[in-house]
Amino acid sequence: MERITVVKIGGNVLDDPEALDRFVRDFAALGGAKILVHGGGKLATRLAGQLGIPVRMVEGRRITDRETLDLVTMVYAGLVNKRLVAALQAAGCNALGLSGADGDIVRARRRAPQPVDYGYVGDIERVDIPLLRMLLETGLVPVFPAILHDGAGELLNCNADSVAEGIARAAATLAPTDLVFCFEKRGVLRDPADERSVIARITAEGYPALREAGIVSGGMIPKIENALKAVEAGVRSVRIKRAADLLDPQEGTTIASC
Amino acid sequence: MERITVVKIGGNVLDDPEALDRFVRDFAALGGAKILVHGGGKLATRLAGQLGIPVRMVEGRRITDRETLDLVTMVYAGLVNKRLVAALQAAGCNALGLSGADGDIVRARRRAPQPVDYGYVGDIERVDIPLLRMLLETGLVPVFPAILHDGAGELLNCNADSVAEGIARAAATLAPTDLVFCFEKRGVLRDPADERSVIARITAEGYPALREAGIVSGGMIPKIENALKAVEAGVRSVRIKRAADLLDPQEGTTIASC
Repeated sequence: MERITVVKIGGNVLDDPEALDRFVRDFAALGGAKILVHGGGKLATRLAGQLGIPVRMVEGRRITDRETLDLVTMVYAGLVNKRLVAALQAAGCNALGLSGADGDIVRARRRAPQPVDYGYVGDIERVDIPLLRMLLETGLVPVFPAILHDGAGELLNCNADSVAEGIARAAATLAPTDLVFCFEKRGVLRDPADERSVIARITAEGYPALREAGIVSGGMIPKIENALKAVEAGVRSVRIKRAADLLDPQEGTTIASC
Repeated sequence: MERITVVKIGGNVLDDPEALDRFVRDFAALGGAKILVHGGGKLATRLAGQLGIPVRMVEGRRITDRETLDLVTMVYAGLVNKRLVAALQAAGCNALGLSGADGDIVRARRRAPQPVDYGYVGDIERVDIPLLRMLLETGLVPVFPAILHDGAGELLNCNADSVAEGIARAAATLAPTDLVFCFEKRGVLRDPADERSVIARITAEGYPALREAGIVSGGMIPKIENALKAVEAGVRSVRIKRAADLLDPQEGTTIASC
């Protein structure tokens, strides 16, 4: 394989049929080996409301009791994943949906209940790299919901950004790997109110100055620091951009080692 | 591959945690290449009730409008499939869940709306045999919910018995294949009231006499005629037995060509 692109797509695109249609076409047109990681948060929250399951979030993470685990397994690994796979197949992309339990391809470790007991929530632990290679070499396109397992029979609800990053690190051992986070903004902005103020490139060397100047702040800090860690761990580049700009190499912010 | 066993497991076992635990252990212990096909009807009906989605059945088949399709996709391809896969992984069986859309492995054709419009319901059309072979040769154990797709972006709700039969026919082109239908009775009974009256073997030659004598009647007629067709199409044997007897070769009814 010459290269691998790992794309993470979030809830905003999944909830908008027109944006989703376009994303599916664009992702299908992306050259080289590729992997999709998806969320699905809003659908789960809507269904939880219909079923009377209380939604509890702590620092943006869903507290996942048994009922909620069943719910996110249905929505992420079932509805969202299979809809995406069927749509990608129709667009000529040989997608294959995989929770972490499928083929034991991605294991997670359940989070310790201290300081916050998130319930059935885990963090990515290891990827079966030979199986990933076999699938990619066969021309298959893995599509991952953020539902992993612990290998002992328990499914675990995980953070899709972290799953994308962990899978990109594993892919980077097979071929040069680029990780793309699709979100609602055009990239990392110098001025949050100005969509034209995208910072084109952030490097490990340049980042501390951006942070000190307060240009990178709030929720962007962990995103960029994780991206820098991924790059340090061997991922060639991490891009943060709008889903609609997926095929445009000029758009978004690139985070690279140098 | 020396042989392939295709097992179909129905809703009764899936709804009983103890029976399911035992089935998972027994299926994991089954030798040779193997494939699991599962239903999940009761869970879907229960969730439909909670969500206020009306359940309409015609001749035992679920009328599947858009809402119901989403529901069965969530329950069969999401919750039931991923629970089974995670439990099989914990039992040492390298299970991999696959809707028909995943890797485009099984396509279905949507049913004509005449004489009954079942909605998003289809019948198995073709299996990607090279992909199935690759998975089995890698030691993976495909686990299929009866959610297939039409290749044009539409998921389709299918009958799990028919899916199991179609997959067994495809598997039979790779290696001698045995198909096992697990259900709640010990097999085909001479006397429906007497569980000890299991008919050990039904052949194409012997079947007409059983039917004429009224020993095979009602819902058993299509089951056995389908099984005979599968055998005619190259499946080595079809067995009808209790899930609890999966590993016991003496139990159940075998349907074979001679």
